[in-house]
Amino acid sequence: MFKLFYSPGSCALASHIALEEAGAEYTLTRLNFASGEQRSSEYLAVNPKGRVPALVTDGGILTETPAILAYIAQRFHQAKLAPLDDAFAFARMQAFNSYLCSTVHVAHAHRMRGTRWADDQAAIEAMKRKVPESVGAAFGLIEDGMLEGPWVMGKQYTICDPYLFTLAEWLDGDGVDLTKLPRVIDHRARMYERQAVKRAIAQERG
Amino acid sequence: MFKLFYSPGSCALASHIALEEAGAEYTLTRLNFASGEQRSSEYLAVNPKGRVPALVTDGGILTETPAILAYIAQRFHQAKLAPLDDAFAFARMQAFNSYLCSTVHVAHAHRMRGTRWADDQAAIEAMKRKVPESVGAAFGLIEDGMLEGPWVMGKQYTICDPYLFTLAEWLDGDGVDLTKLPRVIDHRARMYERQAVKRAIAQERG
Repeated sequence: MFKLFYSPGSCALASHIALEEAGAEYTLTRLNFASGEQRSSEYLAVNPKGRVPALVTDGGILTETPAILAYIAQRFHQAKLAPLDDAFAFARMQAFNSYLCSTVHVAHAHRMRGTRWADDQAAIEAMKRKVPESVGAAFGLIEDGMLEGPWVMGKQYTICDPYLFTLAEWLDGDGVDLTKLPRVIDHRARMYERQAVKRAIAQERG
Repeated sequence: MFKLFYSPGSCALASHIALEEAGAEYTLTRLNFASGEQRSSEYLAVNPKGRVPALVTDGGILTETPAILAYIAQRFHQAKLAPLDDAFAFARMQAFNSYLCSTVHVAHAHRMRGTRWADDQAAIEAMKRKVPESVGAAFGLIEDGMLEGPWVMGKQYTICDPYLFTLAEWLDGDGVDLTKLPRVIDHRARMYERQAVKRAIAQERG
């Protein structure tokens, strides 16, 4: 039995969907970011970074979306969420997820979390202004060459898909021009049709 | 035979050291960032992101340090650079490397690459000013709980170690107070003693 710490609308949704896809048994623990619950001493004992997701497993606690996703794929190999027997294909999958965490998510974070990188209010406003362009450019590379279709890695649905979907959910709020990202938006629509995605979203809203 | 595209002083050093540790056969191709070679059409055909590292393998091209490092560990399993038979330990290792790429490297990048996230010169200067604090805080979490010792994952030297070392090489330039990071600095010193590290650094400077 796993326990997933999450916050609604955060990147923890990717791990949540993957748990659903894998058929894992898990419980959810919701953190209220508005009241700063992620900085409580109780939660910092779980994840000293004060971020979500954190996945409590029988072996210990895991953090960081790309690591959690690959762990779920390996633990539930019968769910076929990753090319586990092909080191190169596995690495390509990990490269995609690494790009999402280090470039795409980071570009987005400059809209709401600018205080991580500057103290000056004018600078924080300048960061916000660039988000439509920087997030748009990061998704533009996905649109133009990284999304094989119908799924990220091609015919096989993998752990790249819930992660891309989760970050693509932020595009509207980030003010990105969606008309330039037809393949990404098409992927997002395809994801909404999956039962695992519907269940995860319903649980987050419930 | 692999080919590694790198730029001196960049995070490509981590993959370079891992290739040395693995005993891999490879060639190096140096990119001159000062002249914008990473944005040339030739290199964008290799890596449309215009970043390093990129590793050309017999199966295709890989990017993103965490993915390249795990690939090297899997391809050269006899080098024992990762706990490949333990999904949880593998995930912890990946979580560490994911933290380095998405939080530590990103904090550092605000010193030299602020134009990624703001257009305004005053904002870019404000970002630079916060780097000693933000990079220091990111390394503080490593110092306080993520570096088991003597190596990141404990007794086993893994692909976390060249990656941590590579980013720790930037601490001085980032103006971080090194006296608060004795374990990180001790790890860095231990890394300098490894033959693979000495060879990779000598090749980059050669």
